[in-house]
Amino acid sequence: MDRMHFGQHSSSQFNEALESIRNHLMEMGGLVEKQVVDALEALLRADSGLAEKVLQTEEKVDQQEIQIDEECARVLALRHPAASDLRLIIAVSKAVSDLERIGDESAKIAAMALQLAEEGESPRGYVEVRHIGNHVRNMLRDTLDAFARFDADKAVEVAAEDTEVDMEYRSAMRALVTFMMEDPRAISRVLNIIWSLRALERIGDHARNIGEQVIFLVKGTDVRHISIDQMEKEVKKP
Amino acid sequence: MDRMHFGQHSSSQFNEALESIRNHLMEMGGLVEKQVVDALEALLRADSGLAEKVLQTEEKVDQQEIQIDEECARVLALRHPAASDLRLIIAVSKAVSDLERIGDESAKIAAMALQLAEEGESPRGYVEVRHIGNHVRNMLRDTLDAFARFDADKAVEVAAEDTEVDMEYRSAMRALVTFMMEDPRAISRVLNIIWSLRALERIGDHARNIGEQVIFLVKGTDVRHISIDQMEKEVKKP
Repeated sequence: MDRMHFGQHSSSQFNEALESIRNHLMEMGGLVEKQVVDALEALLRADSGLAEKVLQTEEKVDQQEIQIDEECARVLALRHPAASDLRLIIAVSKAVSDLERIGDESAKIAAMALQLAEEGESPRGYVEVRHIGNHVRNMLRDTLDAFARFDADKAVEVAAEDTEVDMEYRSAMRALVTFMMEDPRAISRVLNIIWSLRALERIGDHARNIGEQVIFLVKGTDVRHISIDQMEKEVKKP
Repeated sequence: MDRMHFGQHSSSQFNEALESIRNHLMEMGGLVEKQVVDALEALLRADSGLAEKVLQTEEKVDQQEIQIDEECARVLALRHPAASDLRLIIAVSKAVSDLERIGDESAKIAAMALQLAEEGESPRGYVEVRHIGNHVRNMLRDTLDAFARFDADKAVEVAAEDTEVDMEYRSAMRALVTFMMEDPRAISRVLNIIWSLRALERIGDHARNIGEQVIFLVKGTDVRHISIDQMEKEVKKP
């Protein structure tokens, strides 16, 4: 396995290009994290103003995706990266798609917040939104941290968290479906909460995907579509 | 704009590598199309056996994603593709992610088919599933066709179809929510239909995404996150 050697090229322009791509990915990650946090707050506090802000900021996230992909294409065309440099470009290119989709899901939550501010609050589900919301928000922070530090172990932890989020999501869904059957007049409002939980569950999936790219980047192994146990074994390999 | 010149390299090995990647993408596309069709049939005919088959085939889709990404990485590392060759690799690398996710959504529909076969049919929603299902299935076929023929005009058509699917989806959702309020005992079964419609709507999004990669490949322009009108203008440019 080749060692990680970003930023140790004889060409300082190459170093700068790779460094710039990493920085832009981290910047996009920070913005997307803020979108998730704001969308959750907008939903939990029935804050239409904040929800509107999330919807308006989505365009900026989209622009960052396009810009980073352009940077990656330029490096591929001009610099012919190999080994861990090439894996960095590939991992970034996959990760920006996931970040953009997390941005999308945040916008969906913001749209639900607007609906609920208009229709009136849902009688149930906010506890679950807060709980699962905090969980996936931490996963997103950890997965970005793992990318920044090339920390494959932390990336495996994020993947393991995703399994927990999926269980929490299914349990919340069961409770909310039962509640809707008891109080059908609330169906439309409860559904807004259900869509938001679904969006949060998807954000967890995308955080896991980004973690898988970190492992690919650091270890050179594609760990998509395997179990957490197998993933751990791959990461423990010297 | 450089002309499309796949398969016209002095190196026949390079030609073969690009040709192989294209063929594998088309093969994966064919398999994923079959997954969508089978998942729909399983749902509409309450066919548990077919639903199980879709779930079992998902692994094969996942393996194809990994294999095609490996091929792309190899070409990037060894062949240093430029211009339209590089765009082909980038477009394929993005498109496989979308195809894999279409596979995921098909598996979700198959899981809903199993649930409905167990709980008993939903009293509503099959007409909508059949209609929207046929629509996104055609979109997927057209977007793969556009990729095979480097047909940017057809890719724009797929994007325009996606807007229609979104409208059909919203209209179906409204009808089903109203129905659930009238017959709360059916909520759980109707929700399985709602999740299936959601999955179909997502498949439409992914078909559109693949179409955007076709336009990037053919025209060299990133048309993500712009309107259909703008997209048409970009494609009309000489």
